[in-house]
Amino acid sequence: MTDRKKIAIVGVGLIGGSMALQLHEKKLSSRLIGVETDPVHAAKALELELVDEILPLETAIDLAEVIILAIPVDRMVNLLPVILNRVKDQIILDLGSTKSQLAEAVKHHEKRGRYCATHPMWGTEYSGPASAVKGAFENKAVIFCNTEQTDADVLDWVKGMFRKIGMRQLEMEAGAHDLHAAYVSHISHITSFALANTVLQKEKEDNAIFELASAGFESTVRLAKSNPSMWVPIFLQNKENVLDVLNEHIEQLKRFRDCIQEEKADELKNLIEEANKIRRIIR
Amino acid sequence: MTDRKKIAIVGVGLIGGSMALQLHEKKLSSRLIGVETDPVHAAKALELELVDEILPLETAIDLAEVIILAIPVDRMVNLLPVILNRVKDQIILDLGSTKSQLAEAVKHHEKRGRYCATHPMWGTEYSGPASAVKGAFENKAVIFCNTEQTDADVLDWVKGMFRKIGMRQLEMEAGAHDLHAAYVSHISHITSFALANTVLQKEKEDNAIFELASAGFESTVRLAKSNPSMWVPIFLQNKENVLDVLNEHIEQLKRFRDCIQEEKADELKNLIEEANKIRRIIR
Repeated sequence: MTDRKKIAIVGVGLIGGSMALQLHEKKLSSRLIGVETDPVHAAKALELELVDEILPLETAIDLAEVIILAIPVDRMVNLLPVILNRVKDQIILDLGSTKSQLAEAVKHHEKRGRYCATHPMWGTEYSGPASAVKGAFENKAVIFCNTEQTDADVLDWVKGMFRKIGMRQLEMEAGAHDLHAAYVSHISHITSFALANTVLQKEKEDNAIFELASAGFESTVRLAKSNPSMWVPIFLQNKENVLDVLNEHIEQLKRFRDCIQEEKADELKNLIEEANKIRRIIR
Repeated sequence: MTDRKKIAIVGVGLIGGSMALQLHEKKLSSRLIGVETDPVHAAKALELELVDEILPLETAIDLAEVIILAIPVDRMVNLLPVILNRVKDQIILDLGSTKSQLAEAVKHHEKRGRYCATHPMWGTEYSGPASAVKGAFENKAVIFCNTEQTDADVLDWVKGMFRKIGMRQLEMEAGAHDLHAAYVSHISHITSFALANTVLQKEKEDNAIFELASAGFESTVRLAKSNPSMWVPIFLQNKENVLDVLNEHIEQLKRFRDCIQEEKADELKNLIEEANKIRRIIR
């Protein structure tokens, strides 16, 4: 049963703030404690009533029944073992975008069972508590990783929480998660960052781009507004998978380049018709 | 003065159909004639009342006061001289995505002055008359090319037409247009096609992608649904500019690859912060 609990959210930014709104709306929390090291974000989170109070990490851990981690994945790897050292029977979950290094960091911890690894597949290119979105996560997928290492009561409560939020649930090993995440999320961010740099580099002497940027351009480049504090550690933690996908992507771009260079209209048409099959996946 | 005229639209697909809706709504047309070689599209255009009637090209040219071309750019280059051969004092404009080859094809034609080269910067990843959108083009930019070769009365009417539709107007030479279009539109389509092929290639043995595809992924890949009949001739006509941008984009991707490969967190952060400057251009 997913009863209301006292919940601490560590990191009240885009993801933590949006989760706070859902926990409140779906009546999952009896009290919402924020932990936030950035004083500007902390003040904003209070002003927007995302959380009831901001407390230091140790106090929050001791007061809370559930602790949700929504911080960059490099800090997550350092902080999760520290939190597990301090908890008694609290429930801990993280909402991070990579899972292998985190799974590795705590796999032998005596309190490992109190932790549930999750990745709700939602985000925007904005960051900070002012970017928090009502109704976020709904009708999206959430991935649970390595659930065989999580205590049954922890898994029950967390699954109930995501069910109330309205997310489709999948389970996979941390390694499989990181591979898929490289393909359906991490590579999109790299192509978008690189496209932004391509255009900014070439158009720097000219204001034409300001006038001409169309909806199609905005669509492919909007993720380039995303925060480096979040994305640098994701790319580095998921290095091997990201490099595999990125190398494949560069090869695919070279196929387009060679067809255009040699004016092979039929082959170019074939490449585009292959790409059109993405209609199977996105409507 | 932009009075109502009898207008023929050659090619009643996404762009021609959306233009038809605007001409009707903004009371720019006293009669709308469609020219459409695809019988399925022709029937659909009539069913949706995008045009009043479908007529053969020659009849449409003779009856119309304004002729608007909205066909793939390879067919445009062949058809525009043929149309100019037949017109008396009609107004002709095209809505195509490339301009240099078209400008070249008619620059010495004795009726060149009756033609106005335009590129309204709007489109979607869909095609055909059923994809026509009400309110399309509004608040977007339209580029006029080589206007010094267009008769004053033609330019007046066409500018008035786009003003009534609500588009910002810019002028530039055909060559400058094609360069900018490569950066703000054509490259986005190539990256999106190549990203779709990257993911479809790697995820073909696995259905995970269906479950996991998020809004960010959809955003970067949605243009991959675009029609090859439209895009192959654009890439080939704009070959030199597209290759320049594509080579630059591959170099930018390699910079990301090298930073990740060598785990250069600070350089990676710099690359992303550079990319973040795209905020100046898109909100």
